[in-house]
Amino acid sequence: MQEMRMAELAERSGLGVPTIKYYLREGLLEPGRRTHVNQAVYGAAHLERLRLIRALSKVAGLPLSTIRDVVLEIDAGPTVLDAMALTQDALVGDVAPDSSDEDAAALVHRVVRTRAWTCQVGSPAYQAAVRAVADLGDEDLGAVIEHLDDYARAADDVARIDVQAIAAATSLDETIRGVVLGTIYRRSLLDALVLLAQQHHASELAAGSIPSAE
Amino acid sequence: MQEMRMAELAERSGLGVPTIKYYLREGLLEPGRRTHVNQAVYGAAHLERLRLIRALSKVAGLPLSTIRDVVLEIDAGPTVLDAMALTQDALVGDVAPDSSDEDAAALVHRVVRTRAWTCQVGSPAYQAAVRAVADLGDEDLGAVIEHLDDYARAADDVARIDVQAIAAATSLDETIRGVVLGTIYRRSLLDALVLLAQQHHASELAAGSIPSAE
Repeated sequence: MQEMRMAELAERSGLGVPTIKYYLREGLLEPGRRTHVNQAVYGAAHLERLRLIRALSKVAGLPLSTIRDVVLEIDAGPTVLDAMALTQDALVGDVAPDSSDEDAAALVHRVVRTRAWTCQVGSPAYQAAVRAVADLGDEDLGAVIEHLDDYARAADDVARIDVQAIAAATSLDETIRGVVLGTIYRRSLLDALVLLAQQHHASELAAGSIPSAE
Repeated sequence: MQEMRMAELAERSGLGVPTIKYYLREGLLEPGRRTHVNQAVYGAAHLERLRLIRALSKVAGLPLSTIRDVVLEIDAGPTVLDAMALTQDALVGDVAPDSSDEDAAALVHRVVRTRAWTCQVGSPAYQAAVRAVADLGDEDLGAVIEHLDDYARAADDVARIDVQAIAAATSLDETIRGVVLGTIYRRSLLDALVLLAQQHHASELAAGSIPSAE
C-alpha cells in the first residue's frame, strides 16, 4: 500500500479529519511520516488502527478510555489470545457473579467439560453464561436448560466459523477488529437467521406436537 | 391446578397485586370467578396469561399497547404459527427495508433456498437478516459473509432446539411465552457460549494460522 495524505486516510477509514486529528492528539494513533512542516503521510498500519478504533467506537459503542486500554494493550505486543481475551472482556463488560447461581455454575461447568473447551472460568463471558442459565432457571424455562448441551454444540460450530473468518486477517489490529465486528454484526445475523429457521421448524411441527390454539 | 385467590396468583406470577388489578381493569386479564362480592378466584389460564404478560413486559420490555395487540390476537384463536409470527414481529420491531441492499437480499434469498426454509420473506426477521448482511458488507467483512451458509446451518440447529423446547408447552400462552423468553434469554446464553467456544478455538489456532502480534 502506498503512503497517503490525511484526506485519503479520512476517506478510507470512514472517519472525519477532525476526528483523526483528535486521535493523534490523544495518542491513540501514531504520528505519520513528516514530509513538510505542515504535512505528513500515513501507511497501512495507520489505516488499520483507525478502522479498529472506528469499530470499537462507532459500532461497539465503547468509551474512549476503554478504547485507549485496548490499543495500548495491543501495542504492548500481546499474544493474539491475550488480545482477544481483552477485547471479549471489553465487549461483555462486568457481569457481577452471584453466589446464588451455584446450580447454574455447575451446569456451565459440566457443559464446558463435556465439550472439552479450553476457556477462562473467571472471564466475563463465562460469568455471562452462568447468569444466562440462572435467568432461564428463574423463569422456569427448564426445557431450554435441558438442551444446554445441544446449544453448546451449535455455539461450538458458530465459534469455529468465527475464528476461521478472523484467521484471514493479516495483522493484529485487523484480527481484533474482526473479533469486535464479528461479535456484534455476526450476532445480529445469527439472531435473524435463527428466527427465520424457527419459522421453518415451527411450520414443520405445526400439524404435530406444538399445541394448537384450542 | 386448584383455583387460587389474588394473593396466591400474585405470588405465583411474580407480579404485585396492584399490577394484576391494573391488567384486569385494562382488559388484558379475564376476570376471575366471583365467590363473594369482593372476592374472586383464578385458575391456571389466569396464571399462564400473567406469566406471558410478565415476559412481554418485564423481560422483552414491550410497551403495553404492543402487549395488548399480542394478547388480543392470541384470544382471537390464531394458529400457533400466526401467533409465533406476531410475537417474532413484535420482538424484532420494524426494520426499514433499504433498496441499496440488493446484493444482501440476494445472498439471504440464496441461503433460504439452499436450506429450503419455509419462512416469510416480508417478515421483520427476514429484513433484519438482509440488514445484517448489508452491515457486514459495508464493514468490509467479506470473510463472515463467505461463511453465510455455515452460519445458516448453525442457526438451523439452534432453531430446531428452540422449537423442541417450546413444543413442551401445554397451552398457546405458554408457547408464546416460550418464544419470547427463548428468544431473549436463549440469545444471551448462546452469545456467551459462543464467546467461550471462541476462546477454545482461538487457543487451538493460536500457534497456527492466526497472525501473531508481530
